[in-house]
Amino acid sequence: MADGDDDVPLILTWDDTSSGLLEEDANGAGNYDVVNNVVIPTPGAPDPRAQNSLRQSWEMNYQEAAIYLQEGENNDKFFTHPRNAHALRAYLFAHNHLFYVMELLTAVLLMLLSLSEAPAVPFLRLDVYVHATLELLALVMVAFELCMKLRWLGFHTFIRHKRTMVKTCVLFIQFIEAIVVLVRQTSHLRVTRALRPIFLVDCRYCGAVRRNLRQIFQSLPPFIDILLLLLFFMVIFAILGFCLFSANSADPYFSTLENSIVSLFVLLTTANFPDVMMPAYSKNRWSCIFFIVYLSIELYFIMNLLLAVVFDTFNGVEKMKFKSLLLHKRSAIEHAFQLLVSRQRPDGVCLKQFDGLMRFYRPRMTARDRFLTFKALNHSGATMLSLQDSYKFYEVIGLKWKARRSGEHWFDDLPRTAFLIFKGINLLVKSKAFQYAMYLVVAINGIWILVETNMLNVGVSWTRVVPWSYIIFLTIYGVEVLLKITGLGPLTYFSSGWNLFDFSVTVFAFLGLMALAFDMEPFYFIVVLRPLQLLRLFKIKQRYRNVLDTMFELFPRMASLGLTLIIFYYSFAIVGMEFFADVVYPNCCNTSTVAESYRQINVTIGNRTVLEEGYYYLNNFNNILSSFVTLFELTVVNNWYITMEGVTSQTTHWSRLYFMTFYIVTMVVMTIIVAFILDAFVFRMNYSRKNREPLDDPEDEKGIVFETEVSQTEALQTLDLYKHTLGVTNLSSLQDMCVALERSGHSSLVFVGRRSRTKCDLSMKMYEEEIQEWYEEYSRTNLQPDETFHRELDSPEASATNSIN
Amino acid sequence: MADGDDDVPLILTWDDTSSGLLEEDANGAGNYDVVNNVVIPTPGAPDPRAQNSLRQSWEMNYQEAAIYLQEGENNDKFFTHPRNAHALRAYLFAHNHLFYVMELLTAVLLMLLSLSEAPAVPFLRLDVYVHATLELLALVMVAFELCMKLRWLGFHTFIRHKRTMVKTCVLFIQFIEAIVVLVRQTSHLRVTRALRPIFLVDCRYCGAVRRNLRQIFQSLPPFIDILLLLLFFMVIFAILGFCLFSANSADPYFSTLENSIVSLFVLLTTANFPDVMMPAYSKNRWSCIFFIVYLSIELYFIMNLLLAVVFDTFNGVEKMKFKSLLLHKRSAIEHAFQLLVSRQRPDGVCLKQFDGLMRFYRPRMTARDRFLTFKALNHSGATMLSLQDSYKFYEVIGLKWKARRSGEHWFDDLPRTAFLIFKGINLLVKSKAFQYAMYLVVAINGIWILVETNMLNVGVSWTRVVPWSYIIFLTIYGVEVLLKITGLGPLTYFSSGWNLFDFSVTVFAFLGLMALAFDMEPFYFIVVLRPLQLLRLFKIKQRYRNVLDTMFELFPRMASLGLTLIIFYYSFAIVGMEFFADVVYPNCCNTSTVAESYRQINVTIGNRTVLEEGYYYLNNFNNILSSFVTLFELTVVNNWYITMEGVTSQTTHWSRLYFMTFYIVTMVVMTIIVAFILDAFVFRMNYSRKNREPLDDPEDEKGIVFETEVSQTEALQTLDLYKHTLGVTNLSSLQDMCVALERSGHSSLVFVGRRSRTKCDLSMKMYEEEIQEWYEEYSRTNLQPDETFHRELDSPEASATNSIN
Repeated sequence: MADGDDDVPLILTWDDTSSGLLEEDANGAGNYDVVNNVVIPTPGAPDPRAQNSLRQSWEMNYQEAAIYLQEGENNDKFFTHPRNAHALRAYLFAHNHLFYVMELLTAVLLMLLSLSEAPAVPFLRLDVYVHATLELLALVMVAFELCMKLRWLGFHTFIRHKRTMVKTCVLFIQFIEAIVVLVRQTSHLRVTRALRPIFLVDCRYCGAVRRNLRQIFQSLPPFIDILLLLLFFMVIFAILGFCLFSANSADPYFSTLENSIVSLFVLLTTANFPDVMMPAYSKNRWSCIFFIVYLSIELYFIMNLLLAVVFDTFNGVEKMKFKSLLLHKRSAIEHAFQLLVSRQRPDGVCLKQFDGLMRFYRPRMTARDRFLTFKALNHSGATMLSLQDSYKFYEVIGLKWKARRSGEHWFDDLPRTAFLIFKGINLLVKSKAFQYAMYLVVAINGIWILVETNMLNVGVSWTRVVPWSYIIFLTIYGVEVLLKITGLGPLTYFSSGWNLFDFSVTVFAFLGLMALAFDMEPFYFIVVLRPLQLLRLFKIKQRYRNVLDTMFELFPRMASLGLTLIIFYYSFAIVGMEFFADVVYPNCCNTSTVAESYRQINVTIGNRTVLEEGYYYLNNFNNILSSFVTLFELTVVNNWYITMEGVTSQTTHWSRLYFMTFYIVTMVVMTIIVAFILDAFVFRMNYSRKNREPLDDPEDEKGIVFETEVSQTEALQTLDLYKHTLGVTNLSSLQDMCVALERSGHSSLVFVGRRSRTKCDLSMKMYEEEIQEWYEEYSRTNLQPDETFHRELDSPEASATNSIN
Repeated sequence: MADGDDDVPLILTWDDTSSGLLEEDANGAGNYDVVNNVVIPTPGAPDPRAQNSLRQSWEMNYQEAAIYLQEGENNDKFFTHPRNAHALRAYLFAHNHLFYVMELLTAVLLMLLSLSEAPAVPFLRLDVYVHATLELLALVMVAFELCMKLRWLGFHTFIRHKRTMVKTCVLFIQFIEAIVVLVRQTSHLRVTRALRPIFLVDCRYCGAVRRNLRQIFQSLPPFIDILLLLLFFMVIFAILGFCLFSANSADPYFSTLENSIVSLFVLLTTANFPDVMMPAYSKNRWSCIFFIVYLSIELYFIMNLLLAVVFDTFNGVEKMKFKSLLLHKRSAIEHAFQLLVSRQRPDGVCLKQFDGLMRFYRPRMTARDRFLTFKALNHSGATMLSLQDSYKFYEVIGLKWKARRSGEHWFDDLPRTAFLIFKGINLLVKSKAFQYAMYLVVAINGIWILVETNMLNVGVSWTRVVPWSYIIFLTIYGVEVLLKITGLGPLTYFSSGWNLFDFSVTVFAFLGLMALAFDMEPFYFIVVLRPLQLLRLFKIKQRYRNVLDTMFELFPRMASLGLTLIIFYYSFAIVGMEFFADVVYPNCCNTSTVAESYRQINVTIGNRTVLEEGYYYLNNFNNILSSFVTLFELTVVNNWYITMEGVTSQTTHWSRLYFMTFYIVTMVVMTIIVAFILDAFVFRMNYSRKNREPLDDPEDEKGIVFETEVSQTEALQTLDLYKHTLGVTNLSSLQDMCVALERSGHSSLVFVGRRSRTKCDLSMKMYEEEIQEWYEEYSRTNLQPDETFHRELDSPEASATNSIN
C-alpha cells in the first residue's frame, strides 16, 4: 500500500455530523484541539467504517487548508475563517466565481440604473416603476448576499466587520428610498444614489479598488497637512490682494474678499492666469510681482511638496503592505501545513495529502500539474514536503507546466524538406537584417502617411478610395506576420506581447481595408488606426522597451486606479445631477463674468456680424454621461472656472463648494496616480539596475521559470498511486505524460513551469535581505501560529492594512 | 626648540628663483621628484642661509597644500593646478574674492546692458555710443580675466578646458559686434546677445548654476527619449484627429494637419481644453473619447513618466556626484598631506605645519581657532596628525569655536536681583503656557484680520486710519520680542530662524505703523505684510516644522535653480525682443483665432454697448522686463497659446517654433525642479527616519558640533610655540584664551565648534555604509595618489562630473 494511507490527521477540523469520530471544535479556527481518542486502525485489518470516517476527516482538512491558502492569497483576515460546518457551507456558497460574478453584476446594474433614472440619458430613459423595480430587485440580491455573509461570519464577526456594516446601512437606506420612489411614482432628490459605488467596491473582484482607496485614505493625513499650508498661504495672499487691488474698479477679480479668495484658488490651478493679473498689470507693471511670488510659492513649491509628501508616504505604505501580505501568506501556509500533516509524520506532507489539498484549492488543475507542482516544491527530493519547502507554495502555484521539447522548433518532427524550408524561414525572421528591414518599412510607411495626410485638404475624401500605398504596406505586413508565424510556430509567436500587438494591428488594418472595399461606413475608423503600426519603431531602443514593458506591467494597477477615479466621478456626478441638472443652456449666465463662453448670438464688431458660438453650455450635468465628460474637463483643470462660474451664476454661491471639493478630491487621486507611476517606475529601474537584466536581448523570456525532472519509473509509480489509492478518475494528463516519456526514448523528461512576473516577484528580489529579517522577527514572535495572527491583528500596521479589505 | 623646526619637507614644490636649494619641478603637478641633495642642517649650528631657504620651501609647500585643499573644496580639477611660480602668481591673482567680485560685476553689467539697449526699458534708455562703450569696457575686463587664466593654466591646458574655450569664442564674437555697433552707431539684429549669460555662468560665484546646468544636461538623454515618445503619440493622434474632425467646418482646430498638430501640442499643456474639443463634441458626443484617450495617454501617463525618468536619473546623478566630490576631496587632502609631512617624520603633520597651511588656506582665522581646529582633527591625542585624522579636514574647517560657558544663561554673571528677574523672564518665555498663549494671540489676530478685511468694501480706505486692533496686537508682539530677547539673551534669541522671522515681521509691522502715522504713502505695502505673523502658527505641528525646515535647507539650491531659469529666460527674452518687439498692440491680430484677447473696442451685444478690453497686448516682447513677464506667463502655461497665436498672426508660422521650444525648455527645467524638490524632501524624510531625530524638541540645536578640551598647560605651551617659533604676530586670540582659562579657575576649558548642517553632512550619514566601500575601492586603486586622479579623469563618471565645472 502507498504511503500514509492510514495516517491520522494531526489536527481535526470542522465536525461533520456523519462522523461521530471527531469532537466538535467549538472554539473556532485557530484553536484546534488535538483529539486524543481517535481510533487508530490496526494494519492488515482495516475497519471499513473507521477507514471511511478517516477519509472524511482528511477531506475536511484538505478543504480547510485550501480555504486558508485562499485567504492567504486574497489577504482575507483569518478571523473571518468559517468556524463550523454551517458556516463552511455558507462560505463555500459565497466563495466561488458564480457568486462573485453575481455580486459584481448586481453592483454594476445598480450603478448603471442612473443612466435611466431622471435626469436620464435620452435614449435610455425608463419609466419610474421600471427602474425602481429593477433597483428593488438588485437590492434584494445584495440583501441575499449579505445574509449569506452573515451566516458565514456569524453575527458577532459580522457586526465587527466595518465594511460590511457600512454596506448594510447603505442597503437599508437605499431600500427605503427605492420603496418610496415606487410608491410615489416619482424621483425626488436622491443624493443617496451617490453611495451606490459602495456595493461595487465591496465586490470580491474589486479588491484592487479597495486597496487603492485604502492607500488614498492612508495618504490623506500628510496630504491634508500640506493642503492646509497651501490654503493658509492662499488666504494670506487673498487678503494682500484685496488690499492692493480692490481700489482698481476695472479689476473684478479682487473686488471683494470672497472674489479674491476664489480668484486665488482658481489661480492655484493656473486656470485664470494671466487674465487675473492683467487689470492690475495694466495699471502698474510692478503688480506682477505679487502674482509671480504667489505662483512660485504655491504652485511651484507647495504643490510639489504635496507630491513629495504623498510619494514618501506611498513609498513606505507599499513596502509595509508587501511585508504584511508576505507574512500573512506565510501564516496561511503554516495553518494549511498543520492541517495536512499526519499524526504519524508530523513534519512533512506527502503527495497524497498535497493532491487532496489541490483538488480543493485548484479544482481545474490536472493530475499531472498537481504532481509537477508537488515536485517543484519538493526541493530536497525527499518523499515529503517540509514546512520550509511549502513556503514557496504561492510562487509555484501559478506555473503553467510544459514538457521541454528535445528540439527548439515546432517543425523539428517534420520531414526533411519541410524542416529545411521552415528552418530557413526561422533563421530569416530571427535575423537582425529582417528586423531592421521591417523597421525601415514601418518608418517609410510612417513618413508616407504623414506626407499623404498633409497633402489632403479634407480628411474624409481619402477614405472613399483605397490608396495603393495602403495595399502595398498591408501586403508587406501580412507577409511578415505569416513568415513569423510559420517560422517561429504559432505558440512562440503569440507568447510575445509585441508580436500580438503586430498581429492585431495588421488584422485591424485588413478589416479596415475590407470596410473600405465593401463601403461599410461605420468601420472607417479602423482605417485611421493604421499609424499605430509606427509604435513598433520603439522596439529598437532599450529604454523604450523598458518603458513600454513597465507600461504593460503597470496596466492592471492603472486600470484599477482609473476605476477608483470613476467611482469618485460617479458619486460626484450623482450629486451634480441632483443639484445642477439643466441649469446651464445657451445664452444663460449673462450676469457672470464668463457669459461669453455661453453666448450663442450674432455679434456686431465694428461693421461685421459674427456668430459667436460659446460651447460651454455643453459642459452640463443634464445626464450621467454629460456629467462624466464635464467632470473629466474639471479634472483636466484648464478653464474649469468657466463651468464653475456658469453654474454658480445660475444657482448660488455655495455651488462653488462642490467644484472646489471636486478639485481637491481629484487632486488627491491624481497625486496618488503620479506618485504611483513614479514609484513603480523608479522601483522597476532600481530592480533592473540591481539585477543587471540582460540589456540587449530583445526577445528575452521575462518571467518566472521552474524546472523539474521526472523519470520514467517515477511517472509510472505516480500513475499507479493516483489510480489505486487516490481514487482520482481523470488521469489522462498523467497517462499522456507516461506516453510522452516512453515515446521520447529518454529515461527522464524535464518539465518547465512558467508564469509571468508579478510586482510581488520583483519586490521579493528587491527586499531580499529585509525579507529574511522579517521572517526571523516573525518566527521569533510566532511560537504558536495562532497567537501571531491575533497579535498581528492588534498591531497598528496590520490593522492599517486590514481596516478596509 | 619646538618640534620639527629643522624638518625638511618630504616633497619640494615650485621652484622659487631665490632658492638654489631646490630643483625645478618641470614635470608639473603630480610628478614631484623627491630631491636628494637637500642640505640637511646640522643641529645646534644652524646655517642661516639654509635655515632661510628651508623656511621658504616650507612656505611654498604650505601655499601649494592650501591650493590643493581649495581645489578639493571647489571641486576644481587637479589638472588646472598651477605648475610653476609664474602660474602660481597668476593663480593667486585670479583666486581671491576681489577678483571674483569683479568677474561677477562684469558679467552682471553685460547682462544689465540689455535694459538700455534698443528695445530698451523706457526710463533706462541710453544712447548707442554710451551702451556700446560700456559693453566694450566690460568685454575688455572679460578679456583681461581670460588672459590671467591663460597665464595660470598655460596654453596647453587652456585650450583643453572646454568652458573657457567657449567663453573665448563668445567673447570674440561679442567684441566684433560691439565694435560694429559703435562704428555704425545703430543696433542691428543682435541675437548673439543671447549668449551673454555664458559670462555669468563662468563666474566663480555661480558654481551652483553650473552644477544645475550640468544636471540638466545629464538628465537630457532620457528626457529626450520620452519626449520623442510623447511627440510620436502626438503626431499619430494629430493624423487621427485630422481624419476624424477635418470634415467639420465649424472646427478650426483640426482644419489642416499643421493646425491639428499645433492644437494637440497645445492640448498637451491643457491650455486649450475643453475649447479644442467643443466643436467636435457638439456634433457628436462620442468624439470626447478621442480627447479623453489622448489626454490619458499623453498628459497622465507619458508626462508623469517623464518626471519618473528624470527623477530616477536625478537620484542616481546626485549620489554619483556626492561620491565623486567626496573622493576628490579625499584626494586633495592626500595631496596636501604629502606636502606637509617632513622627511624626518613622513607619517604625521605637526601643529607648526598645520598652522602654516591654515595661514594660507584661511588667512582670517585667528591663531586660537587654528589651534582648536588642529585639536579637533587630532583624535588620537598624539602630537601629530595622521593621514587618517586629516581626512576629517573639510568637516572641521567650517566650525565656529566658542568656549563653553560654565552656566547656560547670559545673565549668570549679573548681581543677584537682576539675575532673579532675568531668570524669571527666562522661565516665562521658555514655558509652554507662554508659547501657547502667543499662538492664541496670533490666531485671534488672524481671525481679526480676516473679519476686518471682510467687512471693508474697498481695501484702500482702511490704510488711512490706524485701527486700534493693529496697535494692540503690535504692542503684544513687541512685548513678546522684548521679553524673549531679555530672557534668552540676544545671541540665543537670534540664533533661531523662527525668532529672526518673528523679529523681522514685528519690526516690519512697526515700520508700517510709522508709515501710517506719518502718512508715508509708498510704504503702505508694509502694513499689508501683517498676516505673515500667522505663519508662526505652523510651528505647532512637527510636520510643518519639518516642511519649513526643509524649505529653508532647500532655499539656496532653489535660488540657484531660479537663477538658472532666469539665465534661460534671458536668452529667450533677447531672441524674443529681436524678433517680436512691437508686433502686438491693441486690436492687432484680427486674422487670428485669438483676436478677442487683443481687442479693445466698443462691442454691441444685442442692444447694449460694452467696452471689451483684451489685455493680451501687454504680454509682449517690447523690452526685457516685459519679455520676462511674458516668459513667466508662458512658463505658467495657461493660455500661453493666446500669446503664441497673437505673435504668430503678426509674424510668420515659424514663430510657433520659438514658443514651442520655450515650452519644452521650461518643461525640462520645471521637471528638474520638481524632481529636485521630490528628491530633497524624500531624502530628508528618510534621513529623519533613519536617524530618529528628536521629534518633539522644537528648539533643538540642529547642526554639527565638535568639542575639544584645552588644558591650561597646553594653552600656555601653544602660546609659547606661536610666539617663539612660528613668528605669528597677531596672538591676541590665544592670549585671550589663556586669560579665560586662568580666570575660570578650572584646569581646562572645553571649546565647542558649531556649524550648520549641510546636504553633504546628511549624505555622509545616509550613505555611511556605501562610503566605506567607496573608500576601500578608492584606496585599492589608489597606490599612488597622482596616478588616481589621472585615472579618475579618464573614467567616464569623473569626466561626466568634471566636464562642465
